[in-house]
Amino acid sequence: MKLGLIGPGKMGYNLTLNLLSHGHEVIVSDLNPEPVRQLEGLGAVGAPGIAELAAQLPRPRIIWVMVPAGAPVDSVVNTLSEVLDEGDIVIEGGNSHYKESIARAGKLGGSGIHFFDAGTSGGTEGAARGACFMIGGDREVFGAVEPLFRDLAVENGYLYAGPSGSGHFLKMIHNGIEYGMMQAIAEGFELLEKSPFQFNYEEVARVWSNGSVIRGWLMELTESAFSKDPKLSGIRGVMQSSGEGKWTVQTALDLEASTPVIALSLLMRYRSLEENTFHGKVVAALRNEFGGHAVIKEE
Amino acid sequence: MKLGLIGPGKMGYNLTLNLLSHGHEVIVSDLNPEPVRQLEGLGAVGAPGIAELAAQLPRPRIIWVMVPAGAPVDSVVNTLSEVLDEGDIVIEGGNSHYKESIARAGKLGGSGIHFFDAGTSGGTEGAARGACFMIGGDREVFGAVEPLFRDLAVENGYLYAGPSGSGHFLKMIHNGIEYGMMQAIAEGFELLEKSPFQFNYEEVARVWSNGSVIRGWLMELTESAFSKDPKLSGIRGVMQSSGEGKWTVQTALDLEASTPVIALSLLMRYRSLEENTFHGKVVAALRNEFGGHAVIKEE
Repeated sequence: MKLGLIGPGKMGYNLTLNLLSHGHEVIVSDLNPEPVRQLEGLGAVGAPGIAELAAQLPRPRIIWVMVPAGAPVDSVVNTLSEVLDEGDIVIEGGNSHYKESIARAGKLGGSGIHFFDAGTSGGTEGAARGACFMIGGDREVFGAVEPLFRDLAVENGYLYAGPSGSGHFLKMIHNGIEYGMMQAIAEGFELLEKSPFQFNYEEVARVWSNGSVIRGWLMELTESAFSKDPKLSGIRGVMQSSGEGKWTVQTALDLEASTPVIALSLLMRYRSLEENTFHGKVVAALRNEFGGHAVIKEE
Repeated sequence: MKLGLIGPGKMGYNLTLNLLSHGHEVIVSDLNPEPVRQLEGLGAVGAPGIAELAAQLPRPRIIWVMVPAGAPVDSVVNTLSEVLDEGDIVIEGGNSHYKESIARAGKLGGSGIHFFDAGTSGGTEGAARGACFMIGGDREVFGAVEPLFRDLAVENGYLYAGPSGSGHFLKMIHNGIEYGMMQAIAEGFELLEKSPFQFNYEEVARVWSNGSVIRGWLMELTESAFSKDPKLSGIRGVMQSSGEGKWTVQTALDLEASTPVIALSLLMRYRSLEENTFHGKVVAALRNEFGGHAVIKEE
């Protein structure tokens, strides 16, 4: 198939390579000319802008959007709403909030433009060699883009999930689960590190990756991390987050759903961002107030 | 090799089949004659008791113990301490507490009998077709039993973990991680169930099992469970536990290690055992006390 891809960043670049390797013709465009130039050397066709990209596509036009969530997606979708026509198809593969995807589907749908929200998992390696997609949008139109997902995904690695928003909703929940799983794995190694034994963490993660109940890709990544730095002595235990865990917990509050472990995993990330906490000061002060327990003074 | 196996229950039975399929000669004994009779029909040799089992083995004798943790292991180990001689080897593959394993290694070691604590993961299917083993004990003697683990484990699925206790310690932590991972996965589906979408949970677990970051055996088991009962409408959300999660949290307290998600996963299991909680009554009563908020009366 011939399609456009807007935003060949880390994920979009690898998806483009993946598409090319499956024989698709890809017109790429980006605010940054460098990846476009590189992809031109690998078989893609570059376009200086979205209008020029759309002009090169047969109708109905299929355009994959892979730009950062939020304002960048809004900007691209706004332009697409002006450039595209009835029957054209937009696939938005970033980590957008599902409510924004529902709104964008409505906006484009008003002009007869179809919109699919495609939650994408598997990391940059998955994008290049076989990813996992959760796709929301119009079921009747899905057949027109399904061959793309079949080619880009690992076997059994894509799902038409339901109406608009359901794809990004699933991706959000996937990331919430990921927060909990990662924290559980990490706490296990915390216990090994404080134990009376001297474990080789790479070997532990390796044996847990082979035949155990907790085997899976995250454990394999744990093995990989310890293979590079046996005690992770080169990095600090600061756990950043990029928003989907927070959205999951906000959604849990909206739905009044009991999800304490996912919520706590998020809060532990926030805790890790501070060396010293105000709540710690309060508890220390209160212990001092009622029991005269010593406090550690700020220097 | 020729070895004895005491306790061909769910795990021990399948381990025996696995050993036989690798050409080992296995003498089995159990308090229950039925699995012994069945295994005799499949190539094993039955023994009416532990002494008779030991009498059939060449020296140094290797005896695999696969009986329930606690008193059953104590009983078998006590008998073995009387029956076996210096240089003989006991492998204890159950879910024993690591401190008990250290004590048993000390007790048997006093008579020159070697003891390995072998944490075993992978379920009954793993026992039959390739499991995961974490093994603690004397490094110099490990070579004598390593061929057995190599045959019984999946590739890269066994680890000599360190001195006595380290194998069961690793298995305990593995199970603690498992509690956290399972609760995180389960909370994700809780959110899907309360969401405005109608997801097919089997399909969701299937797509998350293929190419996603959270792929792994537990997600595959989730897919399997939903394939049998799409909404799990046939079972109640009562989460039993069999002790290793509790030991993990007790160990976290001993080590003063920060492991909130594993601890909370255990506490959520306890919460699930009660339809009505006393803490719920207390909070409801207090809301009534200070704000006159309605309470739901017991009938």
